Amino acid sequence: MSESTSLLSIFALGGCNEIGKNMYVLQYGDDLVIIDSGGKFPDESLMGIDLIIPDIGYLEENAAKVKALLVTHGHEDHIGGVPYLLKKLNVPVYATNFTLGLIELKLEEHKLRRETTLIPIDSNSVIEFGSIKASFFNVSHSIPDCLGIVFDTPQGTVVHTGDFKFDWTPLNNQKSDIHKMAEIGKRGVLALLSESTNAERGGFSPSESIVSSHMDEAFIKAEGKIFVSTFASNVNRVQQVVHAAMKTNRKLALLGRSMVNVVSVALERGYLNVPEGMIIDHRDIDSYHSDKVAILCTGSQGEQMAALGRLSSGQFRDVTIDPGDTVILAASPIPGNEKGVSKIIDNLYNLGAHVIYGTGSTTGMHVSGHGYQEDLKLMLTLMNPKYFIPIHGETRMLHHHRLLAESVGVETGHTFIIKNGEVVDIEDGEARQTRSVAAGDTYVDGVSVGDVGNIVLRDRRQLSEDGILVIVLTLSKAEQRLLSGPDTISRGFVYVKDSEALLRKVNNIVRDTLDDLPQGNLQWKVIKQSIMKSVGQYLFKQTKRKPMIIPIIIEI
Amino acid sequence: MSESTSLLSIFALGGCNEIGKNMYVLQYGDDLVIIDSGGKFPDESLMGIDLIIPDIGYLEENAAKVKALLVTHGHEDHIGGVPYLLKKLNVPVYATNFTLGLIELKLEEHKLRRETTLIPIDSNSVIEFGSIKASFFNVSHSIPDCLGIVFDTPQGTVVHTGDFKFDWTPLNNQKSDIHKMAEIGKRGVLALLSESTNAERGGFSPSESIVSSHMDEAFIKAEGKIFVSTFASNVNRVQQVVHAAMKTNRKLALLGRSMVNVVSVALERGYLNVPEGMIIDHRDIDSYHSDKVAILCTGSQGEQMAALGRLSSGQFRDVTIDPGDTVILAASPIPGNEKGVSKIIDNLYNLGAHVIYGTGSTTGMHVSGHGYQEDLKLMLTLMNPKYFIPIHGETRMLHHHRLLAESVGVETGHTFIIKNGEVVDIEDGEARQTRSVAAGDTYVDGVSVGDVGNIVLRDRRQLSEDGILVIVLTLSKAEQRLLSGPDTISRGFVYVKDSEALLRKVNNIVRDTLDDLPQGNLQWKVIKQSIMKSVGQYLFKQTKRKPMIIPIIIEI
Repeated sequence: MSESTSLLSIFALGGCNEIGKNMYVLQYGDDLVIIDSGGKFPDESLMGIDLIIPDIGYLEENAAKVKALLVTHGHEDHIGGVPYLLKKLNVPVYATNFTLGLIELKLEEHKLRRETTLIPIDSNSVIEFGSIKASFFNVSHSIPDCLGIVFDTPQGTVVHTGDFKFDWTPLNNQKSDIHKMAEIGKRGVLALLSESTNAERGGFSPSESIVSSHMDEAFIKAEGKIFVSTFASNVNRVQQVVHAAMKTNRKLALLGRSMVNVVSVALERGYLNVPEGMIIDHRDIDSYHSDKVAILCTGSQGEQMAALGRLSSGQFRDVTIDPGDTVILAASPIPGNEKGVSKIIDNLYNLGAHVIYGTGSTTGMHVSGHGYQEDLKLMLTLMNPKYFIPIHGETRMLHHHRLLAESVGVETGHTFIIKNGEVVDIEDGEARQTRSVAAGDTYVDGVSVGDVGNIVLRDRRQLSEDGILVIVLTLSKAEQRLLSGPDTISRGFVYVKDSEALLRKVNNIVRDTLDDLPQGNLQWKVIKQSIMKSVGQYLFKQTKRKPMIIPIIIEI
Repeated sequence: MSESTSLLSIFALGGCNEIGKNMYVLQYGDDLVIIDSGGKFPDESLMGIDLIIPDIGYLEENAAKVKALLVTHGHEDHIGGVPYLLKKLNVPVYATNFTLGLIELKLEEHKLRRETTLIPIDSNSVIEFGSIKASFFNVSHSIPDCLGIVFDTPQGTVVHTGDFKFDWTPLNNQKSDIHKMAEIGKRGVLALLSESTNAERGGFSPSESIVSSHMDEAFIKAEGKIFVSTFASNVNRVQQVVHAAMKTNRKLALLGRSMVNVVSVALERGYLNVPEGMIIDHRDIDSYHSDKVAILCTGSQGEQMAALGRLSSGQFRDVTIDPGDTVILAASPIPGNEKGVSKIIDNLYNLGAHVIYGTGSTTGMHVSGHGYQEDLKLMLTLMNPKYFIPIHGETRMLHHHRLLAESVGVETGHTFIIKNGEVVDIEDGEARQTRSVAAGDTYVDGVSVGDVGNIVLRDRRQLSEDGILVIVLTLSKAEQRLLSGPDTISRGFVYVKDSEALLRKVNNIVRDTLDDLPQGNLQWKVIKQSIMKSVGQYLFKQTKRKPMIIPIIIEI
């Protein structure tokens, strides 16, 4: 960038026009700070891909300017990309105690713990990164120890909300610090970046406290074992289960690797209060009467291989769900996971379990951690920004958020709905959006980062639809004469035993195609394309399917 | 079946523990009637499958007893399997006028119109199929001309509700005939089969009339063109758009094959009132001022290739969505389609359109056609059955419906939650469930019915995850010596240009594997398995992926 050095630039490398892989950048001259480094789970169209992370080409090119990674909280869409970022850029990581605990789990997995500088912060911290001074404020969300960030720059103050809601009766006193926010707003905010997840939902986000009472009630009514499935990182929900289990004299077992890991981080760092002796090994469940035990498990998103998924199909070693047991789904399905969750609920009914799910106000075992429209308007009102950049949301959410901002007084034209990579530049107090930096999706597949691209994915899609047909023939090099074959091998196309006639006919078509080709020194490529065309047309006519056709010619 | 001839048997071949492919059977001795013959759309795990229909093996085995197919209404999940059933069993089809119109569209597509006997019925029809006498009653739903069915049998009366809600202010006077239902109930009902789609939702299903007022309002406020996307078969919604367009002096264009087809059936048969000259060709849209035209289009379920999908990506020939246009999504996403619908909404925002979606009571442009809990309880109360069989729903819905039945007085133990194929036998007024008939899913893929099974699907899944690697080698038959190759061809596994080293190493591993094999007349199968194992292990270690590995040995 050959920009003026007095230019303040704000952009996203992930998180705009999507839910997931949050990564925002604030740059003033040679000082650049990154906010969050999230991952995103792929949908079914990205076959075989395990994780999506932001393309960080811009950061690599400007490595010398990158002063810090600040992490607002410990959810996957904010920390899932941390190890991948650190492998490219060894930058110090600033986050709260609990968030650092979750980041450490990841770093250990990736063997990055030793070379990484982790710096604990809290809402009282003030850190200077050259010309950018960062301070913080507490926000309520669905994981402990969440921060919003205030950046004081020579151009003015920029506020990033992190993920938040306003909850006046939260667990563990994790309140959004409305007094500090009011002060920040009063001092004057040049630009506000605020999360948009629930910008489509009217009203206020309900409080955690309603879940507590529902949870207690369900525990009191239940007769057999009680299973509660939730996000491991939702320490509030875990604490509520602990409370309900205490009141009903139940021991507590933990199922699922991430549940065990996160609970142990939360216990070690003092974010969870569990009475001595309450947690038991899951292999000991059977030594307690069924109404004396509760089980916390992963799998609330319908993942077949997580604890609840395996329990629901009777495939969890040592633990079974029996008729009369109660299963509580204490999380909402993330969009795209509804079907998987429904399948598990159906399986639980088939096991004879009593299932409690959904978010109704009378029985709901979950509330969102993201503010609804009234929360968002309150934040906008508190901060009263000159410019507004809605972040952390899909396109329609950002547009709804813009309308909310205008409804509470942000000037028309002062909201920037940006795509990842699009830069809002602020100079002399005036903002404009005219340029972009590189941004995009990087795919993690197995151990490889970024090597699976559109060609591989396109092939996977074709293979998944109609399979593959390999045609092997041996030709004499000189005469283009068929020495042996053609032999066909198919996978995912037709059931071979039922399709012998079809495949025999394919062999004939290959022979005819060879016969019809002009004699002489043809390139193999020409022969292959002729075979692909004639066989493809025949198969589509017969089956209305388009398998991938791969002719292999062995020359002798 | 070697059952007593005085036995009344009731079972589902589709529709229980699922939404879709509804097919229910009533049999008394040698008289068998089928109710509905639906299709179901596959989820992503059934790769490449186009449609799922019921396995009708039982009906084929008992072909001589099958007296009729009765169709309650014209939705895909009730008529989508009709052509496939008729190809196996040429049985007369009884349905209302509008339903027959939609069935005829299908029969023409499958070239079955001529040999099929179609018999129009209405709520006054009474038909005897041997010992089973069928009569009918009108129900409200989201498509015209819907029936519930009353079967009088020597064992007693069985009622099948069809799909229904109670709507006292419907369009076109399509009211549920509560007086007739009350009479039926008063005469005494042995068994009730009632649909369960919305058994999880509290309250009453809202009336169509609220959509009418919202639609009018949106049309009055809109400034540019108005696009409304809905199910073509939702003639009510189409009628509401026609009314709103009339009030605002807009012409109406139709986009999408099924929209054009269904509207023409509805017009021909008198189920839709459209003023002369209102419908225009979509190629003429541009000759009207943008506030003088409305467009009805398919694609409300987020299908990328349907009209709205193509419009949202700017790929519909002759028609564009321009900034300031209004797009109304007048349908709810069917579970599983949420992400596709969201993607389209986001694209519409990117085009600068004003988008109206969701089912909020203040702006909602859609209401469900299925009764909520209070509707279901009203039906149960009206019919006051001795036995209850909840149908047309996933497992959890059937269980909720059972609780509703018990809450209004159905005896505990008198509700049968059955799986497809499980038979409820009634004799001397007593019902029991002890036996099953064959039932299952039949897959339609392209033109083939039933030829794609688990092996093909398993292969497609593996191919979709990690692709395929074909390894070709030429061996001398006698000595097991490598004459040429190995050559590797991969698709959907890695990007070949970036992975040359990896694939070279694979070649070395294949050579080593051959060298390590004991000499002598090994079977090709043994050689292939050794290669698959050693290459598979290497690739998993290097990439954490498991491509399908296909060794091909050419012997010379």
